[in-house]
Amino acid sequence: MQSLIDNLRNQLGDAHVLPAGPACAPYEEDWRGRYRGEALCVARPASTEEVAAVVRACAEAGVPIVPQGGNTGLVGAGVPHAGRREVLLSLSRLNRIRAVDPVNATLTAEAGCTLVVVQEAARAQGRLFPLSLASEGSCQIGGNLAANAGGVQVLRYGNMRELTLGLEVVLADGRIWDGLRGLRKDNTGYDLKQLFVGSEGTLGVITAAVLKLHPLPATRSVAWLAMADTSAAMDFLSLLQGRCGERLSAFEIVSAEAHELLLARMPICARPLQTRAPWYALVELADGDAASPLVSLCERVLEEGFGRGWVLDAALAQSEAQAEALWALRENISEAQKKDGISIKHDISVPVSAIPTFLERADTALQAAFPGVRIVAFGHAGDGNLHYNASMREGGEANTALVARTAEVNRIVHDVAASLNGSISAEHGLGQLKREEIRRYKSPLELELMARIKQALDPRGLFNPGKLL
Amino acid sequence: MQSLIDNLRNQLGDAHVLPAGPACAPYEEDWRGRYRGEALCVARPASTEEVAAVVRACAEAGVPIVPQGGNTGLVGAGVPHAGRREVLLSLSRLNRIRAVDPVNATLTAEAGCTLVVVQEAARAQGRLFPLSLASEGSCQIGGNLAANAGGVQVLRYGNMRELTLGLEVVLADGRIWDGLRGLRKDNTGYDLKQLFVGSEGTLGVITAAVLKLHPLPATRSVAWLAMADTSAAMDFLSLLQGRCGERLSAFEIVSAEAHELLLARMPICARPLQTRAPWYALVELADGDAASPLVSLCERVLEEGFGRGWVLDAALAQSEAQAEALWALRENISEAQKKDGISIKHDISVPVSAIPTFLERADTALQAAFPGVRIVAFGHAGDGNLHYNASMREGGEANTALVARTAEVNRIVHDVAASLNGSISAEHGLGQLKREEIRRYKSPLELELMARIKQALDPRGLFNPGKLL
Repeated sequence: MQSLIDNLRNQLGDAHVLPAGPACAPYEEDWRGRYRGEALCVARPASTEEVAAVVRACAEAGVPIVPQGGNTGLVGAGVPHAGRREVLLSLSRLNRIRAVDPVNATLTAEAGCTLVVVQEAARAQGRLFPLSLASEGSCQIGGNLAANAGGVQVLRYGNMRELTLGLEVVLADGRIWDGLRGLRKDNTGYDLKQLFVGSEGTLGVITAAVLKLHPLPATRSVAWLAMADTSAAMDFLSLLQGRCGERLSAFEIVSAEAHELLLARMPICARPLQTRAPWYALVELADGDAASPLVSLCERVLEEGFGRGWVLDAALAQSEAQAEALWALRENISEAQKKDGISIKHDISVPVSAIPTFLERADTALQAAFPGVRIVAFGHAGDGNLHYNASMREGGEANTALVARTAEVNRIVHDVAASLNGSISAEHGLGQLKREEIRRYKSPLELELMARIKQALDPRGLFNPGKLL
Repeated sequence: MQSLIDNLRNQLGDAHVLPAGPACAPYEEDWRGRYRGEALCVARPASTEEVAAVVRACAEAGVPIVPQGGNTGLVGAGVPHAGRREVLLSLSRLNRIRAVDPVNATLTAEAGCTLVVVQEAARAQGRLFPLSLASEGSCQIGGNLAANAGGVQVLRYGNMRELTLGLEVVLADGRIWDGLRGLRKDNTGYDLKQLFVGSEGTLGVITAAVLKLHPLPATRSVAWLAMADTSAAMDFLSLLQGRCGERLSAFEIVSAEAHELLLARMPICARPLQTRAPWYALVELADGDAASPLVSLCERVLEEGFGRGWVLDAALAQSEAQAEALWALRENISEAQKKDGISIKHDISVPVSAIPTFLERADTALQAAFPGVRIVAFGHAGDGNLHYNASMREGGEANTALVARTAEVNRIVHDVAASLNGSISAEHGLGQLKREEIRRYKSPLELELMARIKQALDPRGLFNPGKLL
């Protein structure tokens, strides 16, 4: 192994190969402290060619590679195993914006650019890069691609996959695939980039990407609504989509339980409506035309929502500050939960039309199995994606006991999602966390096809072993 | 081979296995009469299970399969080779709409549904399936998927790939992969459906798909513009996108040469503007809100376009009939060209920002190599996709001589597209037509990766040999 480390030092310079021990520690644990491993060393190449050199050196030595971006993932995909058997490949130094083409509405970024740097580079050219996540200050584009990141604007702009036109990838034998095309249409064979997006570093190391930009919104309208129930929320979503089209850039739902928890734990957040309802919805309309009559559009659609009994009450932001305050009601839920104690979290998706059934079935099954369980549910209802978190209302030991039975809780929630043709990981990926769990829900045939793709692209299993597959 | 045919008759019934000869003729030639082959027989299964039975029988006999939909392709991907060595698998009888879910905005269709049937099933539920092609009355969803079809609304809604959430596919060993998920978010492993979309029948037989629906537009505004030049057209496109966002549902450009040819050959089309310009643009805005002030938005943006000297003149449709008349100016160009004689056609794409450079370089190179050549260019400029067709102005023998040198013409046009990081097949695919040509433009590494994927999914090369790869 020393010869590999020497080889890497030769290629990258001593300063950019961190030896096992304290220097590696920040790379060996995820930001939430849920996964910890030990790397043989941390390699920090600064260019695609250097990444290729690292991969070649590791391939020669038969040592696996764990690619890592901003280390903000939630499923342990970027954290090494124990035992110092893997080289951790940090992409952080590949952090150049290579090009911005405003007329083509594309931006070419290296894997180590943080999301916020990409957003800002786009904005500087009067364009929007719409991916937006809580971790955007530290997550990196390469990780966003490897995880097929989602977030709050997927409803309008799609996941990372839909925002990607081209990739540059270092393959398992160290060769570089230059797929950095900025084309909206290209039907000349298999669309290889699709394989690498969402592959969690198991098929190749993404070193750069051509990303799709969108027009910058010039005006927005944000509303907080009290909804009769989740069926009403979904029907109102359909109405909004029909009437507002792509101007609808977010539709988030929050249960009363989640809302009350937020208000209790986050004094910075104030109750926006006196009307109590079982569910609330946050709606954002946005438009590139500053003169667009968004408020009147919103009011007209709301009127129809009131008329049908779907919407019970509404607060329409009258200023940008009010809009931010309404968004804070959604964005601070995770923080409020953190203050409240541990909960068992899920990131499921179902067809949008199945959200009410999912909630009804999962709530009922959990209450039956764990009387006194408290369910905090919220999320990207416009994409059928809910964060559905369970803890014991009384907290303390009861909650500790519940957390000890996490696998049972997961089983109930995931089985309900699967029964509705849903997914057990809507936007966070599989990583280490759900690698075993997915074997219950994916057909053996699909798992076999995935293994065949892995075999075709990384026959020696060099890239990120023990993750996803 | 007789035993295979007997086996197929056993599985499908005698009536649905057409013997070699006249009964097969309609399946053996593409609709333009450019490709002709001979099948061992035509198998017409009516269900996914029957497709699987056909694939199993062929696999046992070691006989290749050519899947075929509506037989409207332009590159010979669905036509058998000569020699009666392949079974032609027609998907036409798999023609059920299995489900429509308006709240999830999805529709599940079998491969043999014609595009128009899918459009109508969506409309019946108040939704839009936005794929729209000249051949929509006869092309089939399976073929649209295998070809990753494009069309005039890709700018807003994406290609067939972006309109697909899930697939059902019969694999090379006859097993059925059920990937019919209707989820907007699902990060649980490799996104296998992406491999089959655009694979031209070489990796599996698509038998059904979950398709994404959109809100129905309630109002539209269509304009025909005289543009200063193509740079002005691209700048105006950027302005339109910034101001109108996704309401911009088409941006097509037409050269003066193409426009005059149309007016000469299609008496049904009238000149919409007296101003002569080197290029024209067709713009469509559409909105799901019937009250949306599209006309005033269009007028405001046009005013800015006039002010900057990009737009020289404009005709704004005042009625639906006028809108249709403006669209006819775009849609009848192919027909006008057909009446005019043979031309050498290209379907290239480049980054949107490179369209002016492409036209300048390709025009110059062709004029130098073939003095007197006439170039008829038009297409989906909003996607960087041009149909760029060459013939001799004087027609007759000169044109016959040019057509005999098609390979040289292609070489010039494709080299220019490639020099701009473009594609030699934006929306039509490779099929038989460009299977060899692509080897000049794709890197050996990318061709090798494609071959490895083929090997992983169809190791015996059963599916559509001699196409794409």
